[in-house]
Amino acid sequence: MLRMLTAGESHGPKLTVILEGMPAGLPISTNILNQGLARRQHGCGAGPRMSIEKDEIKIISGVLQGKTTGSPIALEIQNQDFINWQGKSLVPITIPRPGHADLTGAAKYGYKDLRLPMERSSARETAARVAAAGICRIFLRLLGIQVGGYVIQIGQIRWDNTTILLSNEFKAAIEERLQASEQSEVRCPDKAVSIAMQQAIQAAQEAGDSLGGIIEVLACNVPPGLGSFVHFDRRLDSQLAAGLMSIPAIKGIAIGNAFGNAAKFGSEINDPIVLKDGHLIRTSNHAGGIEGGISNGEPIVVQVAMKPIPTFPKGLPSVDLANGQPAQSPFYRGDCCPVARAVPVIEAMMVFVLTNALLEKLGGDSIAEILPRFQVLHKMQLDDFSMDTQPWTFDVF
Amino acid sequence: MLRMLTAGESHGPKLTVILEGMPAGLPISTNILNQGLARRQHGCGAGPRMSIEKDEIKIISGVLQGKTTGSPIALEIQNQDFINWQGKSLVPITIPRPGHADLTGAAKYGYKDLRLPMERSSARETAARVAAAGICRIFLRLLGIQVGGYVIQIGQIRWDNTTILLSNEFKAAIEERLQASEQSEVRCPDKAVSIAMQQAIQAAQEAGDSLGGIIEVLACNVPPGLGSFVHFDRRLDSQLAAGLMSIPAIKGIAIGNAFGNAAKFGSEINDPIVLKDGHLIRTSNHAGGIEGGISNGEPIVVQVAMKPIPTFPKGLPSVDLANGQPAQSPFYRGDCCPVARAVPVIEAMMVFVLTNALLEKLGGDSIAEILPRFQVLHKMQLDDFSMDTQPWTFDVF
Amino acid sequence: MLRMLTAGESHGPKLTVILEGMPAGLPISTNILNQGLARRQHGCGAGPRMSIEKDEIKIISGVLQGKTTGSPIALEIQNQDFINWQGKSLVPITIPRPGHADLTGAAKYGYKDLRLPMERSSARETAARVAAAGICRIFLRLLGIQVGGYVIQIGQIRWDNTTILLSNEFKAAIEERLQASEQSEVRCPDKAVSIAMQQAIQAAQEAGDSLGGIIEVLACNVPPGLGSFVHFDRRLDSQLAAGLMSIPAIKGIAIGNAFGNAAKFGSEINDPIVLKDGHLIRTSNHAGGIEGGISNGEPIVVQVAMKPIPTFPKGLPSVDLANGQPAQSPFYRGDCCPVARAVPVIEAMMVFVLTNALLEKLGGDSIAEILPRFQVLHKMQLDDFSMDTQPWTFDVF
Amino acid sequence: MLRMLTAGESHGPKLTVILEGMPAGLPISTNILNQGLARRQHGCGAGPRMSIEKDEIKIISGVLQGKTTGSPIALEIQNQDFINWQGKSLVPITIPRPGHADLTGAAKYGYKDLRLPMERSSARETAARVAAAGICRIFLRLLGIQVGGYVIQIGQIRWDNTTILLSNEFKAAIEERLQASEQSEVRCPDKAVSIAMQQAIQAAQEAGDSLGGIIEVLACNVPPGLGSFVHFDRRLDSQLAAGLMSIPAIKGIAIGNAFGNAAKFGSEINDPIVLKDGHLIRTSNHAGGIEGGISNGEPIVVQVAMKPIPTFPKGLPSVDLANGQPAQSPFYRGDCCPVARAVPVIEAMMVFVLTNALLEKLGGDSIAEILPRFQVLHKMQLDDFSMDTQPWTFDVF
Repeated sequence: MLRMLTAGESHGPKLTVILEGMPAGLPISTNILNQGLARRQHGCGAGPRMSIEKDEIKIISGVLQGKTTGSPIALEIQNQDFINWQGKSLVPITIPRPGHADLTGAAKYGYKDLRLPMERSSARETAARVAAAGICRIFLRLLGIQVGGYVIQIGQIRWDNTTILLSNEFKAAIEERLQASEQSEVRCPDKAVSIAMQQAIQAAQEAGDSLGGIIEVLACNVPPGLGSFVHFDRRLDSQLAAGLMSIPAIKGIAIGNAFGNAAKFGSEINDPIVLKDGHLIRTSNHAGGIEGGISNGEPIVVQVAMKPIPTFPKGLPSVDLANGQPAQSPFYRGDCCPVARAVPVIEAMMVFVLTNALLEKLGGDSIAEILPRFQVLHKMQLDDFSMDTQPWTFDVF
Repeated sequence: MLRMLTAGESHGPKLTVILEGMPAGLPISTNILNQGLARRQHGCGAGPRMSIEKDEIKIISGVLQGKTTGSPIALEIQNQDFINWQGKSLVPITIPRPGHADLTGAAKYGYKDLRLPMERSSARETAARVAAAGICRIFLRLLGIQVGGYVIQIGQIRWDNTTILLSNEFKAAIEERLQASEQSEVRCPDKAVSIAMQQAIQAAQEAGDSLGGIIEVLACNVPPGLGSFVHFDRRLDSQLAAGLMSIPAIKGIAIGNAFGNAAKFGSEINDPIVLKDGHLIRTSNHAGGIEGGISNGEPIVVQVAMKPIPTFPKGLPSVDLANGQPAQSPFYRGDCCPVARAVPVIEAMMVFVLTNALLEKLGGDSIAEILPRFQVLHKMQLDDFSMDTQPWTFDVF
Repeated sequence: MLRMLTAGESHGPKLTVILEGMPAGLPISTNILNQGLARRQHGCGAGPRMSIEKDEIKIISGVLQGKTTGSPIALEIQNQDFINWQGKSLVPITIPRPGHADLTGAAKYGYKDLRLPMERSSARETAARVAAAGICRIFLRLLGIQVGGYVIQIGQIRWDNTTILLSNEFKAAIEERLQASEQSEVRCPDKAVSIAMQQAIQAAQEAGDSLGGIIEVLACNVPPGLGSFVHFDRRLDSQLAAGLMSIPAIKGIAIGNAFGNAAKFGSEINDPIVLKDGHLIRTSNHAGGIEGGISNGEPIVVQVAMKPIPTFPKGLPSVDLANGQPAQSPFYRGDCCPVARAVPVIEAMMVFVLTNALLEKLGGDSIAEILPRFQVLHKMQLDDFSMDTQPWTFDVF
Repeated sequence: MLRMLTAGESHGPKLTVILEGMPAGLPISTNILNQGLARRQHGCGAGPRMSIEKDEIKIISGVLQGKTTGSPIALEIQNQDFINWQGKSLVPITIPRPGHADLTGAAKYGYKDLRLPMERSSARETAARVAAAGICRIFLRLLGIQVGGYVIQIGQIRWDNTTILLSNEFKAAIEERLQASEQSEVRCPDKAVSIAMQQAIQAAQEAGDSLGGIIEVLACNVPPGLGSFVHFDRRLDSQLAAGLMSIPAIKGIAIGNAFGNAAKFGSEINDPIVLKDGHLIRTSNHAGGIEGGISNGEPIVVQVAMKPIPTFPKGLPSVDLANGQPAQSPFYRGDCCPVARAVPVIEAMMVFVLTNALLEKLGGDSIAEILPRFQVLHKMQLDDFSMDTQPWTFDVF
């Protein structure tokens, strides 16, 4: 069981995260962790805070001799902005922004200043998750598992990729797509579409408004057998949905193109099984790599809907809680369209969920113990299946 | 903490479910539980098994004097079909159906007969969840909380309802919609659309194919303050996503119309706050009743995408695991379009998640202890908020 | 993660238990399960109910072809006494028995009849645990792990065994001790002491009183490496303490002879490490097989204190809750000294905790996958350790 | 649900702890937290490290305006010793100390230097728990609940207190006892016994040996109704056992004087119920405040056995893992008898478990919401019970 607790406010001294349950012997490099974190700060539509913060991870514990020890790993990220806030006199905020935790947070916790929910519900917290997931990602890479994402829609600009192709049959195309997206300001693999997306963002920004979008995230080389159908909370799709939906502003989760597939015939979107070079493979991947709540060895593909965030210059009708008067919701620095920057966060949660599922499948306490177990995992070779042929009697109960 | 474990195979003697953590003193009637279960067996496109099984719930424990005692509640549902299977001689199934747990189950657990994963991954298991959720639903009703769902799409036939209207402002419309859907064979509130959906199902059936669809499920009168932004796994949307995605054939979850909203401007889909009769309300509900991971008092609205199931007469290309030969996937009795019948299952998981969130908010061990706590819960009255007006210094760290 | 939920009242129709998380492919025999359960019904000092109930386990689900399938396993035990209670008219009980859940249960749940807490807090519930642990025990036996217990004290009669000897060096003595205890009416391995214990029980019974005692339970051939020091809730001793303390009437848990060891010098009770035939072994086992929260390969030894139960003919001063008048606590059929019969229950909880810890160490989903992992587990061979000799710099943070 | 994760090595830069699940609005003072922590560093038999470290807590997050916000609370304690270790060249340790995690840690995690398990299994980690429990203790104090402990045995010197007296009837005596223990170098309430204990420690120190002991910890004014009999893992005694047994060197847990009580008659150690001033009270408290797994309103009393620690100058027979040669186990700075200093750690785990149980009983998200719920909790007044008098029929199943 892998556990992660994050702590930290947006303008407090730092973010802290403890990751508990990683096996011993995993080589960790601060550089790699920082590279992962940097991706979260990059992208068109980023707000002004991104120029204040240049996140750096400090490993506090759980790593000795450059390797994990199996002990809880504490990571810290300083808030550069803290020095500007320490000792600052703050006038309470009393006008809630619709769509944020301002009003619900005050209702739940009895806050008398809406800064309190804003401090913790801020997307700044996700930096801590990306940091911890960086550890998990090193583990996945060691096993040859790659997680990546890209933007397929911003506002009304949609890139018409074909999820069906994202089976193992098209590994080269996937690789290319992931690389191309990192070159794009909006993390869209297609150049022309990227430009259109950027234009849409700029138009929204000029209009004092915000834009959301859709991200596709995938994991390649995931072995079959993660998750299970035997109990509802063991399903891998359920665990992925929980993880991805826990990200601020994420409101929709689809395994593969689930909402599109709902309009099709069963014969169109269930992926045929064929034998190739001794392996059972698929020529399409509408299932998004998960059947019966279990990974099937094809790339895991999830589409994630991000709402246009509710903080933008032109504001929204609200009410001043101090006096009941109508008031426009306030604007603070914020991204007009954080969709591109959400990609590493979404990847992080997928990385976390998959690492947990793998550790459950593999057990063990050190990389040396786990690696041989991983190597003999079922890879959907026909020879690994051994079918009975004799009838048996259904009478065991 | 509410816990639920289900057990039982599709053709075993019975389904068993234990629900642990319900408070004492909740009046339970087997009749009400059975009515809830009956809804799962009703609907166009139901397969032949539905005429075999007339599910009846037996309360085994946890209820005395007609009320819950706080002890674990065990419920049973007999499998009427069991007598036809007991002692039956079964030839192993070796051709996996794409889209099911057949292949992934065999890869994970090493089964030598694909009947084994089929027995447990069958949707029959969901009857146990509906049964246990029936207990939770009685609890919600006691608090005035109503959960209902309906079908908005089957195949390409979509009912163009307007989720935006599903705020508390339109309670009468919601009520009407829920009632209308129960009159429809396909659980769609609109008569004309229902007929079109039925025709689509019939056409698919004649083509030996299957159809999926989209279901909208909602919960009215949920108090604000369930879930939280303070930690990722406390978010109500995350918990709902996990619960709903854990249902067989469900592949997509959207809070409100999340995927549609991703194409809009922030100013269009964040719900303005207005004061009316002393209450802070919304005139739209794009957020689906959840802001910052917390219920905001508006109806909770979730859209759920169900794939067209992979068992249908014309079959799919597959491979016989016994010999590696190509083979068409087998067809067993099954629903051509179980979307309408999935509605009560989806409701059940929402009911379960909300009950758990409420019990966490309310604490307590008996209805007598819980009711007064519920009655003083924040209801988004302006007067309940008490804002600070004096500046304070950000220096507490 | 292994999960177990039990349900059922003392006089309800049956006990139900669901065990979730067992790997597939474990051969299960109802006979073996029933033998395990029968041990719970045997022993001097057993109350009259034991002649009413002859417990038999029914496997409801999770087992096909005589083997576990990886699906949740539901087991049932009928309450033979139910037919005598069904439809019975019951006068409310209003005088709480000190030492039972009568008063605390009523205070917590608001019961108006003390039968309600009595129905569930009855030790009858432990039959369900023993049944489920029977499945786990088959798993442990497959791995060569043996769990057994015996009585070392009843009232003031104590058998002065020497826990120090219970290291792997004395396996034959352990085996003999476990066998001898099964021949004794009071489950004490020593014949003379057994007779004295029986006499003490008889004297207590004649005095209308009850007796408690101390049980020693042990697990042999447990591999090193279960549990951990890295986080407090991962410690094996902590998990054992939780499991064993959860049994009704159990009030004390000692790893080894902990309370006696607390009076000794450190040099007396820490177990020296010596090399023998290439293995690192101990010549004493004061640690009870656990060091730093981790099993060390020596037998795990736990002493468990059971209080004299509070139901006995002469009763105790109490108060009638119906009118506030002083009243003697009532006596119902009950064991005068259930210590011997508690042994299988205590074993059951140890079996459950160890199985869970093993599954965490081993991971995996089927016996076929787990066995090779188990076989290469560290067995405290010197050769398995590979020490660094070069200095390194403490600077990785 | 209250969650706590600690991280940090003995000689790393700092200890970190995240406490998740505390309600909002609890006033926090660093001073009070530091006072709690200071108690852990005080006491006869403390090792030289105690003069190096003067622990100070830094609140990193979760507290604003001097109050908890409901967000995760991160606390840090610097390791003063870190500057002496940073960049230090370290020769691997290859001789395991019996009784520590050295050997089991290396077997489990594959360490090649025994410093690695020593860094995390060190009792230094408990400072983080004491820090986090300091927050919980402020919560308990707000509710009038007091937790304290004292030493009743060191080596063979035992203070013959009478646990039986520790019922609410003797609150003044309890208070006095707790205060007296804080005046004693060995935290024993009795002056003469304290001197004898100190002499025993000094003798052990001179002999190059170590001593253990027994601690009694109690909680006063705990309301009835925490924990439950309805499921085994809901029992308060089980949760306390898990928490207290998770502390390094703690090997035994007794609710009340459980091992002594096991030798008595049932009529001697079950606590009579009497009515006094409208309240149902006990004149003895052998049950240690817990009946049927539920707090009964009397002081919760737990005895905890601590083994004599295995690090002392004269060492123990061991084996050099680098070459298989016999070798005496090494001695590092360490306490000869840390029993007195363990008291605040034991209190901390009891505080944590009770806070969690209270939050489960009370629910809610802020102190303002929780306080009224606490005030109407059952206090064992006779008037709060309302018994049925009419017969009912046992036929609901």
